[in-house]
Amino acid sequence: MILTVTLNTALDLTYRVPALVPHRSHRVSEVRERPGGKGINVARVLSSLGHESVVTGFAGGPTGAVLRELLAPLGPRDALVPIAGTTRRTLAVVDDASGDTTQLNEPGPTVTPEEWAAFLGTYGSLLREGAEAVALCGSLPPGVQVGGYAELVRRARAAAVPVLLDTSGEPLRRAIAARPDLVKPNAEELAQLTGSREPVRAAHDARRRGAHAVVASLGPEGLLAVTAEGVWQAVPPEPVRGNPTGAGDSAVAGLLSGLVERLPWPRRLARAVALSAATVAAPAAGEYDRGLYEELLPRIAVTERPAAA
Amino acid sequence: MILTVTLNTALDLTYRVPALVPHRSHRVSEVRERPGGKGINVARVLSSLGHESVVTGFAGGPTGAVLRELLAPLGPRDALVPIAGTTRRTLAVVDDASGDTTQLNEPGPTVTPEEWAAFLGTYGSLLREGAEAVALCGSLPPGVQVGGYAELVRRARAAAVPVLLDTSGEPLRRAIAARPDLVKPNAEELAQLTGSREPVRAAHDARRRGAHAVVASLGPEGLLAVTAEGVWQAVPPEPVRGNPTGAGDSAVAGLLSGLVERLPWPRRLARAVALSAATVAAPAAGEYDRGLYEELLPRIAVTERPAAA
Repeated sequence: MILTVTLNTALDLTYRVPALVPHRSHRVSEVRERPGGKGINVARVLSSLGHESVVTGFAGGPTGAVLRELLAPLGPRDALVPIAGTTRRTLAVVDDASGDTTQLNEPGPTVTPEEWAAFLGTYGSLLREGAEAVALCGSLPPGVQVGGYAELVRRARAAAVPVLLDTSGEPLRRAIAARPDLVKPNAEELAQLTGSREPVRAAHDARRRGAHAVVASLGPEGLLAVTAEGVWQAVPPEPVRGNPTGAGDSAVAGLLSGLVERLPWPRRLARAVALSAATVAAPAAGEYDRGLYEELLPRIAVTERPAAA
Repeated sequence: MILTVTLNTALDLTYRVPALVPHRSHRVSEVRERPGGKGINVARVLSSLGHESVVTGFAGGPTGAVLRELLAPLGPRDALVPIAGTTRRTLAVVDDASGDTTQLNEPGPTVTPEEWAAFLGTYGSLLREGAEAVALCGSLPPGVQVGGYAELVRRARAAAVPVLLDTSGEPLRRAIAARPDLVKPNAEELAQLTGSREPVRAAHDARRRGAHAVVASLGPEGLLAVTAEGVWQAVPPEPVRGNPTGAGDSAVAGLLSGLVERLPWPRRLARAVALSAATVAAPAAGEYDRGLYEELLPRIAVTERPAAA
């Protein structure tokens, strides 16, 4: 089983409108609701790839109840911890004309120290239950200390469970020092962490800060992996238009499934890039187009690069 | 007691963002939720003016449950009829910079014939319970026949309860022929009904179609009343910037309370215009600024106009 952690879950809404025009009134032609948050997206993709997955994190209030109801019939097992606060919504407004998306993200509810303690209990049990790997995904909700992810990385390492970290800012800076197996920043997050906008240099720097391996997502330029085994870049054959929500999460699922399956790095990266592109092309936020994934997978160009920083 | 009918209730969300930019991602700095739909707004303003009010219409699903929970501590009595479908959301995105609002309205759930029959039973009981007046507000949800409001107007008249109608399009056209006491179209709705963009002429036409009195809302030019007693126009002393959501509903509450209190037309109109302007100026959709209302009320200019069409 692969465990994913989403401390800031969300009820994801997608609205279709002919075109979003600020300061006008719009009739929404279609509404979709789905259980959201980065770790939940990762777990759903893992399920679709044939991996047993379990989601934990927090859910509460009426939106939390809807999230859990929508999650129940899907692949991942629900091990979310209840909270008194109300789970946030995230809204993607899709323009019919351009296919482009406007995103509006509510702030998360505040987590109390007692709720955090309850979560640590659940997290520990799931690690000991035989997790093959764990992904820590997304932002920290209000109330969770900035070192929260560092604590979760340490506990995973103590349980000998490989840990992937996908977050940003100070929580990333703190947690990377706790020596996660893999971090997956985007170019902006990597630059913020290291001060360098040159991705290979910055990824080497991130390794020196404690990450065993670094996979940086570079948008249309694919993924750059800086690892103990070598440095690779994997690029999609053509740019894909659509809704980028969840593309990074699909990449995480690709990397994590490849880690558990002990695939060599080039195959992990090709899978991650193909899943990511197939997610951008899918109409609903966070879903992926399986046909396109299978079509793209053999066409991802993975090149080895010189290992020197 | 004054009864208001909202067949298409909504959970109203208000998001604050620094500025809404299409195809970008936004952190929402503040989320407000309130029970929404035009008749619910009208009832809340009636309560704040000291009138006992009762809301009916439909509510269902998780959003309907939240709506009823938020309604419970407020003034109006909840006589909403449960439905199997899920109550829609309406979202107002307020730009911090400009104060301007972008509106996104979900479509309503479909009402079944059995649910409509249950509603007619509740509506009839409330009319017989001693309603002093009834307001029929907003669009018809999917599943309710286009003649739905005409039926409700006939039943109110049969029960000798004065009826105000605030809707548009074909439902307005049908219901006006059933001889409501008052209709409150905006300039666009009036033009659509009558084919004339000259408000006085169009309002006279609407009276000939069956409305006993017509009050047209003309945006910054206030309200135009064409009645059996005369023709008046009421105008705010200065334009008010802000969120126009609910301004028309506040005007309806002003007119309806004035009718029940047997105020002369000029005082009804002044109240309606002042409430409407104080609603535009309030930060949350559908609330009004009581201080501004009281300050504006004596400053509304009401002028009598020649009665000829």
